[in-house]
Amino acid sequence: MLRASFAEQLRTCEHSNDSLVCVGLDPLPDAMPAGFAGPAGALAFCCAIVDAVADLVCAFKPQYAHFAALGAERELAALIEYIHERHPRVPVILDAKRGDMGATAERYAIEVFDRYGADAVTVNPYLGHESLRPFLKRTDRGVIILCRTSNPESAWLQDYPTDDPVYLRVARASAEWNTAGNVMLVVGATYPAELRRVRDVVGDMTLLIPGVGSQGGDVAAVVAAGSNSGGAGLVISASRSVLYASTAADFPSAARAAAASLRDEINRLRRPRL
Amino acid sequence: MLRASFAEQLRTCEHSNDSLVCVGLDPLPDAMPAGFAGPAGALAFCCAIVDAVADLVCAFKPQYAHFAALGAERELAALIEYIHERHPRVPVILDAKRGDMGATAERYAIEVFDRYGADAVTVNPYLGHESLRPFLKRTDRGVIILCRTSNPESAWLQDYPTDDPVYLRVARASAEWNTAGNVMLVVGATYPAELRRVRDVVGDMTLLIPGVGSQGGDVAAVVAAGSNSGGAGLVISASRSVLYASTAADFPSAARAAAASLRDEINRLRRPRL
Repeated sequence: MLRASFAEQLRTCEHSNDSLVCVGLDPLPDAMPAGFAGPAGALAFCCAIVDAVADLVCAFKPQYAHFAALGAERELAALIEYIHERHPRVPVILDAKRGDMGATAERYAIEVFDRYGADAVTVNPYLGHESLRPFLKRTDRGVIILCRTSNPESAWLQDYPTDDPVYLRVARASAEWNTAGNVMLVVGATYPAELRRVRDVVGDMTLLIPGVGSQGGDVAAVVAAGSNSGGAGLVISASRSVLYASTAADFPSAARAAAASLRDEINRLRRPRL
Repeated sequence: MLRASFAEQLRTCEHSNDSLVCVGLDPLPDAMPAGFAGPAGALAFCCAIVDAVADLVCAFKPQYAHFAALGAERELAALIEYIHERHPRVPVILDAKRGDMGATAERYAIEVFDRYGADAVTVNPYLGHESLRPFLKRTDRGVIILCRTSNPESAWLQDYPTDDPVYLRVARASAEWNTAGNVMLVVGATYPAELRRVRDVVGDMTLLIPGVGSQGGDVAAVVAAGSNSGGAGLVISASRSVLYASTAADFPSAARAAAASLRDEINRLRRPRL
């Protein structure tokens, strides 16, 4: 059977779950409920979260560092396999921010798409188009390029120079590189003005928006600034505000309530951009 | 015993081996000699190279992607441990080009320095100073920031805008961030004019120079443009030209000859920059 493209997977899941919410899977040792520790605990915790919210999201986004710091690559692979088997409609974005050149970039594409079986990956544009080609040529997978990140000091490089900043250069180039419809951009919820400028240059391209929830991004501002002409085009990612909504035994139901609340809040605000 | 800083390790090894050569450890499945395959083969191949050239180098640089694509994280950890045990004078740079924010960057610092025990790591500046602080605060380790990379299309972002390009902005900031003496920059051997401009703004900071050998960078141009006031300040990295100098059973001696030749060529050219 022909594999559905990441864009198709995302659209299908967004429609069937009526959701623009992505839940990030960041198993932090100090934040997980008691009884979850080490690689096996991280996997069990994430699987419990996944089962609790799978019908409320359009994607899952495991964060690579949180597994790598634990030496839990096997558990990361097992988590992605678990999502694919139990919740086959929900695509998986591996948030690994890879960025390297030539033969090395080829190896990273093999790592994320073949070894881990991720449906999409986040990548860093600092090394230019050549460094992204090994990912871009995998046209059935999503390539999500860092553009304007949600962190406090991202302006230093990304918003430089003032008149035509790097993040807009990345946005324009990414739209050109998107000949196969497999490109997305990361734009932080904490920068709605910049989100609006990105939307202005990328047409209806889907954007991954981290930074709502514990980072303080405003959902209404994101939806107003970032929606495309179809009132969608956003994958709004929350991690800690969902994962650690409770750290007691009721954490799955608390996560479910937090994800449902975010989904409903977004859906109340959605309308096509004029 | 107090751990020597990365800068001290590097200086000591550079002097005792009279070498500015770093050998990159990139186990490519299609390039390794017959009989070396999979994670165990990659480890055995790299250990053989390490033993063959350890007295000719100032550092080793395992490349993360080449292990990750094979699912060989345990072998990567074992390789670094092998170098530390058998060749304790030679520091290890993990070339992982990490770049993320906040709690995630903290986890990456734990991954590279604690899990893998690397003495230094390459990082990506796209997310700004905040994203590098978890690495920078580990003052006994080296933090090697991508500045002007050796690949063909690196100018697109790094050399933008013309009048005061991103790579110089990164170089100036990195010099400021270097309060603990643990910062270096990556500048490709393929761009000697840019290397000279970087040297002009970073004082005597040590630079990691990939791109000689198979990427075509010119050693004489690198030494002329990049040496610091002591006729050093360069860690010149070669990978494929050493690793795959022969793909027959004589590969260790061929690697040794290639590394010795590069070391001697560099040393003939070395002189303090005027």
